[in-house]
Amino acid sequence: MSSYTPPIEDMKFLLGSVLDYDARIAALPDWDEVTAEFAGEVLNEAGRFAADKLAPLNLPGDEQGASLADGLVTTPTGFPEAYHAYVEAGWASLSGSPEYDGQGLPRTLQILLDEIVSAANVSFGLFPGLTSGAAEALAHHGSDELKAKWLPGLVTGTDCGAMALTEASAGTDLGLLRARAEPVGDGSYKVTGTKIFISSGDQDFGNNVVHLVLARLPDAPAGVKGISMFLVPKFLKNEDGSMGARNTMSVGALEHKMGIHAQPTCVMNYDEAIGWLVGEPGRGLNAMFTMMNKERLFVGIQGLGLAEAAVQKAADYARERLQGRSADGSRAPVAIIEHADVRKMLLTGRGFTEAARALATWTAMQMDVASRHPDAAVRAEADAMVALLTPVIKAAFTDMGFETTVIAQQVFGGHGYIHEWGMEQFVRDARITQIYEGTNGVQAMDLVGRKLALDGGAAFERYVAGIEADIAALAGNQLLESHGEALADAIAALRRIVAMLVENKGDVSALGAAATDTLRLFALVSLGWMWLRMMRAAQGLDTPLAQRKQQVGAFFFARMLPQALALAAQVEAGPATIMAMDAELF
Amino acid sequence: MSSYTPPIEDMKFLLGSVLDYDARIAALPDWDEVTAEFAGEVLNEAGRFAADKLAPLNLPGDEQGASLADGLVTTPTGFPEAYHAYVEAGWASLSGSPEYDGQGLPRTLQILLDEIVSAANVSFGLFPGLTSGAAEALAHHGSDELKAKWLPGLVTGTDCGAMALTEASAGTDLGLLRARAEPVGDGSYKVTGTKIFISSGDQDFGNNVVHLVLARLPDAPAGVKGISMFLVPKFLKNEDGSMGARNTMSVGALEHKMGIHAQPTCVMNYDEAIGWLVGEPGRGLNAMFTMMNKERLFVGIQGLGLAEAAVQKAADYARERLQGRSADGSRAPVAIIEHADVRKMLLTGRGFTEAARALATWTAMQMDVASRHPDAAVRAEADAMVALLTPVIKAAFTDMGFETTVIAQQVFGGHGYIHEWGMEQFVRDARITQIYEGTNGVQAMDLVGRKLALDGGAAFERYVAGIEADIAALAGNQLLESHGEALADAIAALRRIVAMLVENKGDVSALGAAATDTLRLFALVSLGWMWLRMMRAAQGLDTPLAQRKQQVGAFFFARMLPQALALAAQVEAGPATIMAMDAELF
Repeated sequence: MSSYTPPIEDMKFLLGSVLDYDARIAALPDWDEVTAEFAGEVLNEAGRFAADKLAPLNLPGDEQGASLADGLVTTPTGFPEAYHAYVEAGWASLSGSPEYDGQGLPRTLQILLDEIVSAANVSFGLFPGLTSGAAEALAHHGSDELKAKWLPGLVTGTDCGAMALTEASAGTDLGLLRARAEPVGDGSYKVTGTKIFISSGDQDFGNNVVHLVLARLPDAPAGVKGISMFLVPKFLKNEDGSMGARNTMSVGALEHKMGIHAQPTCVMNYDEAIGWLVGEPGRGLNAMFTMMNKERLFVGIQGLGLAEAAVQKAADYARERLQGRSADGSRAPVAIIEHADVRKMLLTGRGFTEAARALATWTAMQMDVASRHPDAAVRAEADAMVALLTPVIKAAFTDMGFETTVIAQQVFGGHGYIHEWGMEQFVRDARITQIYEGTNGVQAMDLVGRKLALDGGAAFERYVAGIEADIAALAGNQLLESHGEALADAIAALRRIVAMLVENKGDVSALGAAATDTLRLFALVSLGWMWLRMMRAAQGLDTPLAQRKQQVGAFFFARMLPQALALAAQVEAGPATIMAMDAELF
Repeated sequence: MSSYTPPIEDMKFLLGSVLDYDARIAALPDWDEVTAEFAGEVLNEAGRFAADKLAPLNLPGDEQGASLADGLVTTPTGFPEAYHAYVEAGWASLSGSPEYDGQGLPRTLQILLDEIVSAANVSFGLFPGLTSGAAEALAHHGSDELKAKWLPGLVTGTDCGAMALTEASAGTDLGLLRARAEPVGDGSYKVTGTKIFISSGDQDFGNNVVHLVLARLPDAPAGVKGISMFLVPKFLKNEDGSMGARNTMSVGALEHKMGIHAQPTCVMNYDEAIGWLVGEPGRGLNAMFTMMNKERLFVGIQGLGLAEAAVQKAADYARERLQGRSADGSRAPVAIIEHADVRKMLLTGRGFTEAARALATWTAMQMDVASRHPDAAVRAEADAMVALLTPVIKAAFTDMGFETTVIAQQVFGGHGYIHEWGMEQFVRDARITQIYEGTNGVQAMDLVGRKLALDGGAAFERYVAGIEADIAALAGNQLLESHGEALADAIAALRRIVAMLVENKGDVSALGAAATDTLRLFALVSLGWMWLRMMRAAQGLDTPLAQRKQQVGAFFFARMLPQALALAAQVEAGPATIMAMDAELF
């Protein structure tokens, strides 16, 4: 069985040859030494760590699973040591704020690290992933006192973080949540309630767990405006900063899930647990969204990472497995990678993963620009692009990521269904990414209902205008011009649909009926853009990687982009046939 | 949690109002009493049995799983009793030959029973499913002596059947298999080898297990022409027909699988096990295909059954789960079935299941015509239609069936990922249907490489001409005419593609590159045809079911058929971008 090989060469190609990283990111304040070359070295190390320490725990971790006994969570063998090594090596603090002991490296590196860790062991990756998300929310909304007390632990990873939103009757609709918080009088609160689906809710690493919990203050209004956020740690902190008394919160159960078995997904009971308000009363959802937006990108990257790991294994298997005859009619069995249908499956996977990596990197670069560029207008524009792309990356990368794991499993035939080969685990693990941090249907509504309407639709228009400028620059490029035209057609369809949605922006059913297909079309256009950029950059190079870019890219335009035709026709059919039927008739 | 409700009303509608069952099937010899009305009563009983006795074992069966200890297989609690009750009630023998104690009822009823059983408990359904497949192969190819000895047990279900084809290095490519058989001299053979992935390979029902094993005779040529089929029973039979000595075959292990956990999928070791040749030496693959073709339809029906069960539960959940606001802006939470995106998911599931049931029923009616019609030409034509549709039903019903279980799981949000709700089991169970009995890629090659070329392409042409005749009959039908036109466009695209494939019929890569998308396009056209027929039949009726047919059908034409556009464009892009890349670059 092959193991995971981090795609470092591809990442270097993106930074060095496609996305102009040095001019755009290394040129930002304090990052003059964080060049593409330096980034490549960091990623090399990250890749080695993930392949050596995390990937080997993935299949055994799924078999063993996380468990709960006498209120104590046990993670699979090797997880605690791997987590400590991860923190020790500095991976947890890579992009954390230097003010709180982080290394302050660009988000661009972080997102590539996130892909590598997710590919190697997605259950493990949720520990640092949620920890840095909690740090982000606290950094943006916490008081100076709370930040001084709790941020260094979260930023370095010596503490872990978790987000506690969902309740049994309040999932997508958080306005229905019931957990409550009563002021103690000394600035702290007693938080009471039960939360479900809490990833990384507890572990046996010996670390504290800092929960960000949504709850209602006494007399808070109903609905989302009555929700506040509280920092509720597993262990209180002594004056000297050491871990103090155990807080009155406990793990009620671990969820029995389809996948990510190594992850302790907790039912959490808070029983007058001591906590502190983060941000303004009634602004909890706003504070949580800082964390959620970061996590949504992270989840999209999980979809990408799982797809990359799965398609790598499928390609290796397809090169080794001998079945059937070659197309030239000779009698000896051939490797199944010679069969057109198997190639088509692998190319479909690669057509997604390579362009998705490029788009994720481009988006992370926008995040870096938004945080450090000296010009406020440039920062604002970059921020708008991140906002626009966040639901697309979350939903499309996890939908296409899941589909890719299914394709990769299919390459293995019957063996794909057997646990020991590891392919069915990818499918089970990937499935959650379409659901958590806001289902993909919620992401699609975010795109069509909010993001496409940013700046009255101008942000979207600037985004596609940027793509069109790249297409226009291909004039005379014999290899790529026709692909540019195909992409321009898809953009025209997308623009037509966005205009229709803007016109109907008060009509929730019209938006809902269009949402998922519009998001997928938006993603196809964006992936096509990245293929054009990669193919153009590869034209100057004579390497196996450059050859692969031309060939996978050509496949994308011939065999994946046509999907845009169907999506556009489906959206343009409107909501009538969706809304007509009586609920009882379904 | 809701339970499974067999769709008896829909089945009756198909037989009575859409597919003209009485005139076509009840009119065949000896079936004058097997009217649509009688069939409805039988299906009612079957539905009650499945809902009462089989569905309740489905979730616990997944949790407990089949196990192996000291060479003995144990199925989950309740399975042996349920199997005996199934046989006792006569469900196992429903369509079996009366000559061997079967009830001789039409295949049309059998396929509807198969859907019900698969929906209730797909792991259970594999026991009778493989048993009747083995009976079919034996009936067609066995000697009179073998048939007299073994068929009554298989036909009634007092014995179970299994098919033993796959070896570790011989899956899709059976020509590579190594199991061997040596003549003993008394007409029996000693069969030796190891087979993997053997569904229903053993159980603890107290029944015999009759394995049909592919193996090579001494000096048999290499490749598929050296393969013969042997009947190898777990227990030999005494002269008086009672169970005799234990044969030298054993279960080496149970496979650890993604799903169908209640099914004992065996690694089988045959160690000079006594067996008898079924059919001619070297014609084993031919004999096995009798069984496989039946099983392929059965597996397609499993995909349909799982989808039906999943979408039913999703619809029930969506009616009960309160989240979000209604489109009219009022503040109270509404059932999520009011949200357009949730409706779209459910309608996509229904758009598949209801038309798939119709197409399966139509195909089963062709099987009945092929077996009993007095006119040989009519029989031959029906047989050609079954051959044409078999790969389409196997692959498209399992691909779309799997997708439907994923959609249904998505409706549940986070709860869908949790085992106890049962939705993730549907996904895991459905996944195998895309793989076993020939992967869906193999089915697609069967369609484009063999079935579309039947009678030099004339069989396909007659099939679509039949659809076109139904479209032509809609002239002036204001509600349906435009749907007919849309379907005619899709047929035109399919016909163009088939012509292109026939032209390139020697080019294996061209066929392989086109295969899966062509099959899906063929399936969409066929489902669209069934929607037209159902909508037309519903026009005369004023029932909730008729209303649902109009509305789901309208959704299908607006939101599912447009996929044909993309599929056609993808196929017409040809094989070049698929075949170009060097295997090492994937």
